Amino acid sequence: MIPTLVPHRQWLTFGFAAAISLALAGTALAQQGGGMPAPGPMPPAPMASAPMAKAPIDRTKILTELGVFGDFSVYKLRPEYGMLPAADRKAAAAEVLAVVEKHKDKVIVDAYLTRGFDAKSDYFLRVHAYDLAAAQAFLTDFRATKFGSYSDVTENLVGVTKALNYITKAKSETLNAGLFAATYSDPAPRFAIMIPVKKSAEWWNMTEPQRLKEIETHTAPTLQYLVNVKRKLYHSTGLSDTDFITYFETNDLGAFNNLLIALAQVPENKYHTRWGSPTVLGTIQSVEGVVNTLSNTNPAM
Amino acid sequence: MIPTLVPHRQWLTFGFAAAISLALAGTALAQQGGGMPAPGPMPPAPMASAPMAKAPIDRTKILTELGVFGDFSVYKLRPEYGMLPAADRKAAAAEVLAVVEKHKDKVIVDAYLTRGFDAKSDYFLRVHAYDLAAAQAFLTDFRATKFGSYSDVTENLVGVTKALNYITKAKSETLNAGLFAATYSDPAPRFAIMIPVKKSAEWWNMTEPQRLKEIETHTAPTLQYLVNVKRKLYHSTGLSDTDFITYFETNDLGAFNNLLIALAQVPENKYHTRWGSPTVLGTIQSVEGVVNTLSNTNPAM
Amino acid sequence: MIPTLVPHRQWLTFGFAAAISLALAGTALAQQGGGMPAPGPMPPAPMASAPMAKAPIDRTKILTELGVFGDFSVYKLRPEYGMLPAADRKAAAAEVLAVVEKHKDKVIVDAYLTRGFDAKSDYFLRVHAYDLAAAQAFLTDFRATKFGSYSDVTENLVGVTKALNYITKAKSETLNAGLFAATYSDPAPRFAIMIPVKKSAEWWNMTEPQRLKEIETHTAPTLQYLVNVKRKLYHSTGLSDTDFITYFETNDLGAFNNLLIALAQVPENKYHTRWGSPTVLGTIQSVEGVVNTLSNTNPAM
Amino acid sequence: MIPTLVPHRQWLTFGFAAAISLALAGTALAQQGGGMPAPGPMPPAPMASAPMAKAPIDRTKILTELGVFGDFSVYKLRPEYGMLPAADRKAAAAEVLAVVEKHKDKVIVDAYLTRGFDAKSDYFLRVHAYDLAAAQAFLTDFRATKFGSYSDVTENLVGVTKALNYITKAKSETLNAGLFAATYSDPAPRFAIMIPVKKSAEWWNMTEPQRLKEIETHTAPTLQYLVNVKRKLYHSTGLSDTDFITYFETNDLGAFNNLLIALAQVPENKYHTRWGSPTVLGTIQSVEGVVNTLSNTNPAM
Amino acid sequence: MIPTLVPHRQWLTFGFAAAISLALAGTALAQQGGGMPAPGPMPPAPMASAPMAKAPIDRTKILTELGVFGDFSVYKLRPEYGMLPAADRKAAAAEVLAVVEKHKDKVIVDAYLTRGFDAKSDYFLRVHAYDLAAAQAFLTDFRATKFGSYSDVTENLVGVTKALNYITKAKSETLNAGLFAATYSDPAPRFAIMIPVKKSAEWWNMTEPQRLKEIETHTAPTLQYLVNVKRKLYHSTGLSDTDFITYFETNDLGAFNNLLIALAQVPENKYHTRWGSPTVLGTIQSVEGVVNTLSNTNPAM
Repeated sequence: MIPTLVPHRQWLTFGFAAAISLALAGTALAQQGGGMPAPGPMPPAPMASAPMAKAPIDRTKILTELGVFGDFSVYKLRPEYGMLPAADRKAAAAEVLAVVEKHKDKVIVDAYLTRGFDAKSDYFLRVHAYDLAAAQAFLTDFRATKFGSYSDVTENLVGVTKALNYITKAKSETLNAGLFAATYSDPAPRFAIMIPVKKSAEWWNMTEPQRLKEIETHTAPTLQYLVNVKRKLYHSTGLSDTDFITYFETNDLGAFNNLLIALAQVPENKYHTRWGSPTVLGTIQSVEGVVNTLSNTNPAM
Repeated sequence: MIPTLVPHRQWLTFGFAAAISLALAGTALAQQGGGMPAPGPMPPAPMASAPMAKAPIDRTKILTELGVFGDFSVYKLRPEYGMLPAADRKAAAAEVLAVVEKHKDKVIVDAYLTRGFDAKSDYFLRVHAYDLAAAQAFLTDFRATKFGSYSDVTENLVGVTKALNYITKAKSETLNAGLFAATYSDPAPRFAIMIPVKKSAEWWNMTEPQRLKEIETHTAPTLQYLVNVKRKLYHSTGLSDTDFITYFETNDLGAFNNLLIALAQVPENKYHTRWGSPTVLGTIQSVEGVVNTLSNTNPAM
Repeated sequence: MIPTLVPHRQWLTFGFAAAISLALAGTALAQQGGGMPAPGPMPPAPMASAPMAKAPIDRTKILTELGVFGDFSVYKLRPEYGMLPAADRKAAAAEVLAVVEKHKDKVIVDAYLTRGFDAKSDYFLRVHAYDLAAAQAFLTDFRATKFGSYSDVTENLVGVTKALNYITKAKSETLNAGLFAATYSDPAPRFAIMIPVKKSAEWWNMTEPQRLKEIETHTAPTLQYLVNVKRKLYHSTGLSDTDFITYFETNDLGAFNNLLIALAQVPENKYHTRWGSPTVLGTIQSVEGVVNTLSNTNPAM
Repeated sequence: MIPTLVPHRQWLTFGFAAAISLALAGTALAQQGGGMPAPGPMPPAPMASAPMAKAPIDRTKILTELGVFGDFSVYKLRPEYGMLPAADRKAAAAEVLAVVEKHKDKVIVDAYLTRGFDAKSDYFLRVHAYDLAAAQAFLTDFRATKFGSYSDVTENLVGVTKALNYITKAKSETLNAGLFAATYSDPAPRFAIMIPVKKSAEWWNMTEPQRLKEIETHTAPTLQYLVNVKRKLYHSTGLSDTDFITYFETNDLGAFNNLLIALAQVPENKYHTRWGSPTVLGTIQSVEGVVNTLSNTNPAM
Repeated sequence: MIPTLVPHRQWLTFGFAAAISLALAGTALAQQGGGMPAPGPMPPAPMASAPMAKAPIDRTKILTELGVFGDFSVYKLRPEYGMLPAADRKAAAAEVLAVVEKHKDKVIVDAYLTRGFDAKSDYFLRVHAYDLAAAQAFLTDFRATKFGSYSDVTENLVGVTKALNYITKAKSETLNAGLFAATYSDPAPRFAIMIPVKKSAEWWNMTEPQRLKEIETHTAPTLQYLVNVKRKLYHSTGLSDTDFITYFETNDLGAFNNLLIALAQVPENKYHTRWGSPTVLGTIQSVEGVVNTLSNTNPAM
């Protein structure tokens, strides 16, 4: 099922980017791809394409479809966790993995280690689901595990994937072509960054052509980073205190820094009322890896 | 007692919407409706229509009357709760339900699970009462239960229902008619969203005709969402640090996201000094359901 | 000692309003009144009119005099308090009342229950003293009681009563007369609201006539609420991070909501940099009542 | 060593004010005074005039010299402190005084009780040192005492005394004379207030003559308060998140309130980005007094 | 390997300054210097010049190279640490040093004591690494030590060193020369200051020549402080919620205060949306020194 057009490279401007994450307990990257979803308004029944019960979610499919919910929950481990008996901490990952397994027909789960990069978190989870209640069911079970019960949620944002708004073939043909002229070609990403974006009343009150123009200006300088930064966009207005959740994966943080500077240097930036706060940077890991690392069952020496 | 006009579908624009919540321990939706309250200033004695002592509050009635208080309290369960003996946690729901029963002649109580959607809460309660002191009495007893005593309040907003301000038959006939031209027709809502709204001094200093015009512009694009989003409005100026509490129920979060974007795209949005912060999204549940889920007496496996 | 003019009904506009609070352990309202203090600058020795040692403070007098300090301290009870033995909690009120008794020649104390209305508090105290150090001495002893030692202070504002600034007989005769043309005539207030106010540099840099004009515009629409909302004003610039503490008592929260909307709809509102944050709403109770309610020695059932 | 000119009455405007604080364990006020330091840039070696090792710091001297560091640390006592055995709390003051004694050749220490006035603190310390590292050494030892170890730091600001910037004899002769035309003549101050000040980029980008003009406008209305409010200024740009620490002592809080209103009513106020936040008001006490009061070894009864 | 040009004296304006810190357990300052890195865009593979495994990082080299990550983590020690047995606290430094030793082929670590200067921290670490994941690995091991496990992270910022943007020989020859006309000549710095900087959308939307002009205006008044303040710059856009981390070392806090005032007095300051918050001031110490001081194994007496 190879797409002829790869829409996931579109967002803000480019739309929903390649959602490439790590498999549950390993490090193999899922293949990019997925069929080209028809552009247009979100389907009225977002759960229409949900897989059959008990069959595991098709990772490639859910990461490229529209009307899918992304639930980002950011956690800080309480220090008391480290004082539990080592046996408890050694058993933690298995308990968490069992919860992931239990919900595998409803959600997929990605995990990221942020300790050492961010004051307010140690790790974060990204959960995708066709039904947001399924994401809640998973996260509620996760919080009931030993590891989850010692984790405080410091941020939680919910968004939904939607069709492209601006840089479509119809509205902005050249830029739309540019989005598909290059593919990520760096080594597999080791880092992910989650950045919430909220826009001002002035932005939302601009006409559609005005916003299209600004997004075109925003898009042009970003094309050169398609080769080393992957992107995915979630819409959050009314679901959380943000308008968008932007998600990136990269192996080249210097290039990523330059991309974000380029995004700062266009007029659209003047309409941001929130851009970050928090910026959450983590290393891409398996769920098991995150739990084991933070369980530090092997002391430093 | 079927209303000929259904004023509860009006707020901001539409006024106080259908207040459809779950019955105490079940999932049956109360019927929409209630008599048409006379438009005009709030009655000087808001307790005038309070029911007789010991008779349970008439849910349909209190949810459609004017001068009723809505008390929204948002809670985060302390992690220590999960470390109580399972027997304590299993008994928690019954203790809370007994408190609800004790106060049933003075208040009605709705419950929502927010865990997994919001960093600062696990659940919230919506309490309606003719006398705000009765809501306090209930909530004080609730906090004295085992479950309540392990719950930290992270937000608490108080509002009162009032007659329509703007989109009345007299002031804006066509839009007023539009508000009644469609009815919620989606499956029963599974999600509720509470969003506080505060407006700037510039807004409040506009003339009444100016504000009417802005609310008309705000109302027009929202009519199409009457079929899939229910709404109810509470006035809070001086009672809490917000001017309004807006409350929504829906089964279609994509449609809700689109409705909120439509509300962002009108000039009224420029006068918001608070819109969200917090936006609290939850699943609609019975009180018993919320307590039992967060008591996780059945481990994940 | 019946006043011919009742200046306490003036503040912002009306000046310092009737300070009607509950007596220590009862519910009888003190009578409004008190002699007309000479308008003008605050006396250089604010302790001049302090009562003799060991005689209880004259409640009516201190609530109407100028140069009196009002110390508002807002508290959240730590959850550990509820886990103390019932005997300890049953004895709590008596210990607090003994502290009030010990300081009765220096301070008067009012108490308000906010649980169920405000996320950041369970109750607040309002202490009046001729010497601010006496208020500190009382509050320090209060914090040394069992109940006080389990109470976290979440807000603490200090202000002083001063003569009218604007709506005096000399400067604004008609409005001044209006302030005295109506008296509170509702049932005894059951609710109190404390709202801090801070004004911008632009406000303070306006000329005296400009500020007078704005306060006149502010005053006119409030006259109609003299019958159902009592008010008192404290000046705080330099003493706390606010310019004013506004304090209200009412039995009609709908009328109060309307009054605050009226205050939002005048140009003066554009100069507010803080109006609320927190807005603290509570039920007026005796000190004993607040302590006993929060000690919940009688479980919900 | 009686000064012919009393430079401590200058700050902002007046420069560094009279630093009058309480001696270690007593209540006697140090005499105002100290030689007139030569105006001009801060000496490159701020430790040049430090006293010889082991000789106690000359209090009068350090409080009037330039290039001296002032370290303001604000504390909240954790509630667990009050649950320590009474013997531990009774011994607390002696332990703290021993630390003060140990460092008496390097720092002087003033203490203030804020409980009952401020939500975020119970007391604060003001430490003066010629070498900022000596202030750190003292405060580190202080935090290692029983009392210090139960104290959480809620604010900590560091500043340095510098020569007058604006109202010098050369630049503004008349106002400079006015600063020396009156002396504090009230009873010994019982209250101290610490207020941080930060100014906007617009302020700092004004020309020197423009800023001089604004400071002259600021100074004129304050001259009348020289008799009842003492002041001292510390410069903090780059050392803490504030530009200035302003420190006041008074016995007349009504006069102080009027002084701060006068400072709000000049254009300079429009350039404040921080003025307070926190405003910390305390009673001036000995170190021993503060520790003993907060150790409440004598229960309220 | 003596540089003919010393690029580390450039940043903002001057670029990346001399990174002079204390060796692991001693106080000897590393020599300034390092080869002149070629100006230009950051190399695509920032890890290209990483040293061979197991050989200790070359301190002088990493502190002057481009594409190096700086990870600033700021900590507050929990009070429970001080209540651990003295033996545990005495052993703490050795355990931390072993972790530093374990990672010495991947990271270098500098430590600073902030207790007594900052409310939100007791110390901070600066970690340099060619691979940001290596910094995370070190910090994760550090948090697993006894000392680290009692440390709460209150701020954590990540940046990367990059070539000069503005004051290059090509773009601004005279100022570029000025940057190399003076060398730090004061005694070894005892103090370090970390100040985050974030710039507005207006700044980033200025043209390159406009920004060059502002940075020239910013640079000129700072040249005089090259002799007593060292500087180093890290770029953080997209990596943390800041655009830059500015880092200073000095022995003369008065001169530093004057430098920061000079930086406040140029138009560039009008484009700061964050400058500090926090400003973190500390004394430069060895890792061992910081741990031992905060372990206060020698009580004050």
